[in-house]
Amino acid sequence: MLRDNMVKVVVNGVGTIGKRVAEAVKKQDDMELYGLSDVSASGGLRTVLSEDGALHKTSLYGSSEDGVENLREDGMHVEGVLEDVLGEVDVVVDCTPPGIDEKNKENLYEPNDVKAIFQGGAPKDIAPVAFNADANYEEAEGEDFVKVVSCNTTSLSRTMSAVDENFGVEHAVASLVRRGGDIPQDGRGPINSTVPVTEVPSHHGPDVQAVMPDLDIKTLAVKVPVTYGHVHMVNVELEQEANEEEVLEAFEEQPRVSLVSAGDGYDSTGKIHERMRDLHSERSDMHEAAVWEETVTVENGTLYWIHMVHQEAIVVPDNVDAIRAMFELEDKDTSIKKTNDAVRIKSVP
Amino acid sequence: MLRDNMVKVVVNGVGTIGKRVAEAVKKQDDMELYGLSDVSASGGLRTVLSEDGALHKTSLYGSSEDGVENLREDGMHVEGVLEDVLGEVDVVVDCTPPGIDEKNKENLYEPNDVKAIFQGGAPKDIAPVAFNADANYEEAEGEDFVKVVSCNTTSLSRTMSAVDENFGVEHAVASLVRRGGDIPQDGRGPINSTVPVTEVPSHHGPDVQAVMPDLDIKTLAVKVPVTYGHVHMVNVELEQEANEEEVLEAFEEQPRVSLVSAGDGYDSTGKIHERMRDLHSERSDMHEAAVWEETVTVENGTLYWIHMVHQEAIVVPDNVDAIRAMFELEDKDTSIKKTNDAVRIKSVP
Amino acid sequence: MLRDNMVKVVVNGVGTIGKRVAEAVKKQDDMELYGLSDVSASGGLRTVLSEDGALHKTSLYGSSEDGVENLREDGMHVEGVLEDVLGEVDVVVDCTPPGIDEKNKENLYEPNDVKAIFQGGAPKDIAPVAFNADANYEEAEGEDFVKVVSCNTTSLSRTMSAVDENFGVEHAVASLVRRGGDIPQDGRGPINSTVPVTEVPSHHGPDVQAVMPDLDIKTLAVKVPVTYGHVHMVNVELEQEANEEEVLEAFEEQPRVSLVSAGDGYDSTGKIHERMRDLHSERSDMHEAAVWEETVTVENGTLYWIHMVHQEAIVVPDNVDAIRAMFELEDKDTSIKKTNDAVRIKSVP
Amino acid sequence: MLRDNMVKVVVNGVGTIGKRVAEAVKKQDDMELYGLSDVSASGGLRTVLSEDGALHKTSLYGSSEDGVENLREDGMHVEGVLEDVLGEVDVVVDCTPPGIDEKNKENLYEPNDVKAIFQGGAPKDIAPVAFNADANYEEAEGEDFVKVVSCNTTSLSRTMSAVDENFGVEHAVASLVRRGGDIPQDGRGPINSTVPVTEVPSHHGPDVQAVMPDLDIKTLAVKVPVTYGHVHMVNVELEQEANEEEVLEAFEEQPRVSLVSAGDGYDSTGKIHERMRDLHSERSDMHEAAVWEETVTVENGTLYWIHMVHQEAIVVPDNVDAIRAMFELEDKDTSIKKTNDAVRIKSVP
Repeated sequence: MLRDNMVKVVVNGVGTIGKRVAEAVKKQDDMELYGLSDVSASGGLRTVLSEDGALHKTSLYGSSEDGVENLREDGMHVEGVLEDVLGEVDVVVDCTPPGIDEKNKENLYEPNDVKAIFQGGAPKDIAPVAFNADANYEEAEGEDFVKVVSCNTTSLSRTMSAVDENFGVEHAVASLVRRGGDIPQDGRGPINSTVPVTEVPSHHGPDVQAVMPDLDIKTLAVKVPVTYGHVHMVNVELEQEANEEEVLEAFEEQPRVSLVSAGDGYDSTGKIHERMRDLHSERSDMHEAAVWEETVTVENGTLYWIHMVHQEAIVVPDNVDAIRAMFELEDKDTSIKKTNDAVRIKSVP
Repeated sequence: MLRDNMVKVVVNGVGTIGKRVAEAVKKQDDMELYGLSDVSASGGLRTVLSEDGALHKTSLYGSSEDGVENLREDGMHVEGVLEDVLGEVDVVVDCTPPGIDEKNKENLYEPNDVKAIFQGGAPKDIAPVAFNADANYEEAEGEDFVKVVSCNTTSLSRTMSAVDENFGVEHAVASLVRRGGDIPQDGRGPINSTVPVTEVPSHHGPDVQAVMPDLDIKTLAVKVPVTYGHVHMVNVELEQEANEEEVLEAFEEQPRVSLVSAGDGYDSTGKIHERMRDLHSERSDMHEAAVWEETVTVENGTLYWIHMVHQEAIVVPDNVDAIRAMFELEDKDTSIKKTNDAVRIKSVP
Repeated sequence: MLRDNMVKVVVNGVGTIGKRVAEAVKKQDDMELYGLSDVSASGGLRTVLSEDGALHKTSLYGSSEDGVENLREDGMHVEGVLEDVLGEVDVVVDCTPPGIDEKNKENLYEPNDVKAIFQGGAPKDIAPVAFNADANYEEAEGEDFVKVVSCNTTSLSRTMSAVDENFGVEHAVASLVRRGGDIPQDGRGPINSTVPVTEVPSHHGPDVQAVMPDLDIKTLAVKVPVTYGHVHMVNVELEQEANEEEVLEAFEEQPRVSLVSAGDGYDSTGKIHERMRDLHSERSDMHEAAVWEETVTVENGTLYWIHMVHQEAIVVPDNVDAIRAMFELEDKDTSIKKTNDAVRIKSVP
Repeated sequence: MLRDNMVKVVVNGVGTIGKRVAEAVKKQDDMELYGLSDVSASGGLRTVLSEDGALHKTSLYGSSEDGVENLREDGMHVEGVLEDVLGEVDVVVDCTPPGIDEKNKENLYEPNDVKAIFQGGAPKDIAPVAFNADANYEEAEGEDFVKVVSCNTTSLSRTMSAVDENFGVEHAVASLVRRGGDIPQDGRGPINSTVPVTEVPSHHGPDVQAVMPDLDIKTLAVKVPVTYGHVHMVNVELEQEANEEEVLEAFEEQPRVSLVSAGDGYDSTGKIHERMRDLHSERSDMHEAAVWEETVTVENGTLYWIHMVHQEAIVVPDNVDAIRAMFELEDKDTSIKKTNDAVRIKSVP
């Protein structure tokens, strides 16, 4: 039950995902960013709260008493400790590192009776629902705890649900080429190496199955020296016949899948990155999974394609939708449309 | 002499620099983006003119008859050929590739009596003035042809003019660590190599001297596998004594030099890139030369520092100022302030 | 028919492949490196022929009259033009760039009645046989022209033939993560991009089918910023049941497939590169396809694995075997064993 | 005093430097590799001791009782614990990580009265002499503890001592472009960032002064995404006049400085890496500091050049010379010549 007609949201953990979710919440008309919470002042936190930053004048809390102190020592203006205001908050979007999220649930959210959303790195059993708006919005309706799945899983859930609903998936295999680290993570490698995930199939398959339990999907993965974007090479045995136009149409109709054309000049992750810059997308973010349209191919009942995932941004709209589902504010299609309009998700011409 | 009270500007060549200058011109209150001109539809041109793009509804011309045809074949809406409208234009900012710029001057701008600005790749003698707003604004006043110097030269002109005016430069050496290619230039290397410019001193020193003829400066350079930002390591023998605070103050007062603090978390080019994203800077652009404040050091009369240059964006405000100087619209300080306010150049807190 | 009891071999085009094949030929006891041929003195040619180089005192020819002149201008000692000595040569291993190879066949090898081997970049119809020693040695026996397939195709032919012979392949899909350029190719990208091959399925599938016509295999591919090694993620529907040990055994028995263990510390292409350095392999070359043993997995009749391909070296032993096959010197197993012993191909402990 | 006519050497810590020093010791005729010592079986250790490895059949000890156990659990054959055999050993080359080296000195080498050599990461006061063979061989004569300086310091000591002896150095500044990690270090970054050392001047200047106390040298440094080779851009004010030929001659005469020519095709670190591969240098190692000859320039009394440092290999010959100096086996020139001949150090033609 809502305390007000606007959902009051706190984002706890203002890193890569947290700062983006906070900004996205601010753009919605049915929810309010009550505040941020963290335990120290990273460059990111410092900047988003600075005079020119995206979250200037947002209230800042310490996630713990120590956190309050650290933040103050770092020169930040802190309102107090998060727990003291949880009584006025409807939901916390927890974007803290794996391990911390679990403790927060036990020590902060459950005792204070506040709903919470967790991210892809959280343990499976932290919430009854592994969430992707396109694939299973309804399952989160009314829930107190929801886990929004990771970036790779989100892109696979979006594309696979489009294919599965339209043509049926007999068996799917996705080969993931993951980025080594994000733009500011200069301490992460590899330099000049390709690093396989030697556990085969990798965990990404079961992660998708947490969202789509009936999907037969296996994944393999490697890590490479890039900072912007994972790329997936996918092959799917279809249950029903389909031709390429039908598949392209199914992708086009998926509200968070974009078709990009190599022929128009977008033939690498760097060129798509530039495209998002040219669109003045904030932080050069791409919220859609981007399928290279030339790669969509059907041969002998097998469908192939290659898509790109912007690892920092793709889960942001799903976090917003999860809030709506948990408070049963809107049905799936309306929520997705509202979020998309607010954060300017659109198809690539 | 102006035909109107707003300077009518055409940007010819809508690549890395051209699209940025066009957008910056649109933000000024004393000039008007009359149109763009190009010879084919790159992904960049396509996007900036798309419905969501920054230059939507800007008129597009072909730089030649062939250009008109190519653009139309690429599906673009083209008004006609550039030459036909030059009579209504005050100045062309020419951002075409080296070689083309010279021909344009001879065949388009001189015969049609229109002023023009050229970029760093153009030959030295294309214009009587090599321009950097901080260093020699006045020299461009009233001129018909001006060359805005390259990104590396711009950052050195800004920092060196601050040092030279305040303390005098006896002798300066800058060691440049250049990016291999821009974000979308996936065909450029190196991968896993450092490539020296074996011509020593490199051309960057004489380039700075085109702006500041009395400066004794030598440069060396290498190229490395990064896409966002050059880094310069500088050592300067000072004419007068100075301490570090005085140098920091001189940099702070330079309107297009920012001090960034590694201690605040901005300790690499990737972290500064992220900072520009966190500030929602369009395209994650940084127009300032960013000096790491911890690196500013004076020992035995020699001053050392390290700064970063965003190679795609740093020359953009100087192009805008060059227009004002050529039409004698404002004096140096006023022009720089107007441009800075319009494109949101500010110091890092 | 051989002119002598040793096959006289010329390597034409002393680049990445050519210099390695020449060195490998020198290590065999049934063939002789008659000479090298090229058209200019690259750093590579200069070094391999230098006093410390691997091919010191090998005769050098110009591939054409102009080539002779260029080489002499570059300060090299040249015996003369290749064509003049073709009468004394049994076979030319042509490692010239695509386009040149075809002309050489027409203008040099056919008119002078000399056998020739071409490389993976040559057109399909340049030779009646697309060759991989493990997969189809016998087909090259007695032939005048043979094409040794590319590095990616070679690794797939070796692993797929092992799987197909033992368990039968119903359908295979390989997702290729290709290096952007070789160690010295500092002009090649990408930097910080993943570049998909937007033609799906990619040409690598049909290339394998040139060697194994009955194999149902499709491939997808991307290019990433690394210089040493392609990586393939593979999934195969088997005709017969198999468990992981049986597959590992099949790979172990394949004379040019190595199993490497991530658990032993070889968990990336960089670590395998280091392993080849630690073995004092010349040029750090790895001639085997290296399968990460932990990745070999069978689930529900589908076999998965990930392997690495050293793009510069893997085809070298196949070139040597092709020579033996063309002159019917040895049967398949003997030739492979001779070559392996001579170039020190061995399993990883 | 020597126990035998061959110096008995143990290498403790078989990582990047340790394995190379061990192999180099084996190639000398006046010293003997008594054994290796370590605490666990890395991939490197495993390989160098394998049947095909460079140090096959070398005795292995555990550096501690725990080390013995770990190594045995990792499947290695271990003779026993290092301390038990120190009585038969003349000198330990300690290549253990910083922190461990100090404890080893206190707990192992001093109590057992065995000489020891430490590496560049060790603390300054671990030994009375900071050693570089070219610059101060004589100072290590008869010493019990010597520290061989780091790779960057070694290259600067070699080049600066050549310049200082011939022309005198008034003041030197070196700008270092460092590699992010070694070939197998896939966990190290940066990817797509340039990371400045914000302490200016950096520690490398004082490190050189530990070898050459009278040299006025300052250094600045950044880290970039490459794995093979640091690059230094240097400017030196000379005490005496010199022209470029004289400087080139001084470098040529320095026994561990090589001149490489960009004009001959070696115009990047990748191309020099390939050159070492083409020379069949073990592990593609380069022991020399490589000065690009085109970069050697003198203007107005200032000397400029750019050189490359192979960070893994350059200190290896100095470790060997340090042994000879500590036992007063040979004078400087003889030792350097013996080492150079044994490890095949030669000038690039």
